[in-house]
Amino acid sequence: MRITTAGLDADDTLWHNETIFRLTQDRFRSLMADVAAADVLDARLAAVEKRNLSLYGYGVKGFTLSLIETAMELTGGAPSGRIIADILAAGREMLGHPVEPLPGVAEALADLADDYRLVLITKGDLLHQEQKLAASGLGDRFAAVEIVSEKDEATYATVFARHGTGAAQAVMCGNSMRSDILPALAAGAHAAHVPYPLTWAHEMAEAPLGHERFAELGSISELPGWVRAISAA
Amino acid sequence: MRITTAGLDADDTLWHNETIFRLTQDRFRSLMADVAAADVLDARLAAVEKRNLSLYGYGVKGFTLSLIETAMELTGGAPSGRIIADILAAGREMLGHPVEPLPGVAEALADLADDYRLVLITKGDLLHQEQKLAASGLGDRFAAVEIVSEKDEATYATVFARHGTGAAQAVMCGNSMRSDILPALAAGAHAAHVPYPLTWAHEMAEAPLGHERFAELGSISELPGWVRAISAA
Repeated sequence: MRITTAGLDADDTLWHNETIFRLTQDRFRSLMADVAAADVLDARLAAVEKRNLSLYGYGVKGFTLSLIETAMELTGGAPSGRIIADILAAGREMLGHPVEPLPGVAEALADLADDYRLVLITKGDLLHQEQKLAASGLGDRFAAVEIVSEKDEATYATVFARHGTGAAQAVMCGNSMRSDILPALAAGAHAAHVPYPLTWAHEMAEAPLGHERFAELGSISELPGWVRAISAA
Repeated sequence: MRITTAGLDADDTLWHNETIFRLTQDRFRSLMADVAAADVLDARLAAVEKRNLSLYGYGVKGFTLSLIETAMELTGGAPSGRIIADILAAGREMLGHPVEPLPGVAEALADLADDYRLVLITKGDLLHQEQKLAASGLGDRFAAVEIVSEKDEATYATVFARHGTGAAQAVMCGNSMRSDILPALAAGAHAAHVPYPLTWAHEMAEAPLGHERFAELGSISELPGWVRAISAA
């Protein structure tokens, strides 16, 4: 099968993301230590985020608003000014966080870019994702960047038709079974899962073990070899 | 000059937007009436928004965070829970606000879509803009939708190359001189300004009167005739 195009997820595939959310959540726990136990707070925040997902979508700004809303709920509608100030500061710091490619990413992209058209396919805040790509120094590797509100089968079909030669001649690589792997397979692409140590509960799904177009890779360094093996097959 | 493609701005060109921001700002003034005079509050909010623009970008979520930050500043860091709750509710209502095409929009798009490829080109929150387009019932008219973080000359060159036959064979129509007209003209497209009664200060710029590819239209209903006249010339 000739492969022309490689799609790559961004957050937690090319650079850290969930870790930064978790660190902010740790900070929120400390901030709210007098107000709520950590498990109560985590459960409430998860419920607020889930409720807001269809309205706010993915990204730091929506997360910041959900933190404020959670603080409101847990303080009976009267959070201290210090809590609000600290949440706003935390959101700001997340948006300005330095972006460093994960180990092996720069080398794998350089290798792949020699033979394939690379497309970045990511969810999240439009401006923030563009800023992270610019800060990562990886921007030049990508022939196209698609920042989307949802990653489903139709998304991959559209993106690989627009920027490549269709999903059948494309591979997708990412850390989320739910967003990167399953819908890309459904669209007819090959898909390689590269795990990240942390996964947001919302992104969890069963691995499609045994699927002929699926691979579980130990790291992104294995991606170029896997793509070339498919191309040669 | 043969025209193949028509780009359309969304907010305040196809549907109301600035009005909804202004109504929320009125509500914020009432909410903060005991805290600050309207002019003081407006000036502070404008300063906060300007400061946050490079971090938050355009859209309701960033505006909501800026309202909270303004409330923090004007209350010495101790806003009441009622103020925070009301700002969160206002942001939520803005995101869920019904979307109705402005007068003449549906007819103009239907007319144009017969002969030209229509591309929606808009800034703002990715998810929210998609939701507004879906709610407007206008989605089927567009061959492509580009939600971008900034509208500059390079944006128009890229978008009209990707979805049309280049900027020289494209027209752009919108209400913002700064974002819709001047950069589209700079990219080599024709551009038609359709005024909206309100314009955010950030979007103000001088009209390029006398520019051979520019037109000031009284309403979007004049757009199809203008485009056909260019095509026939």
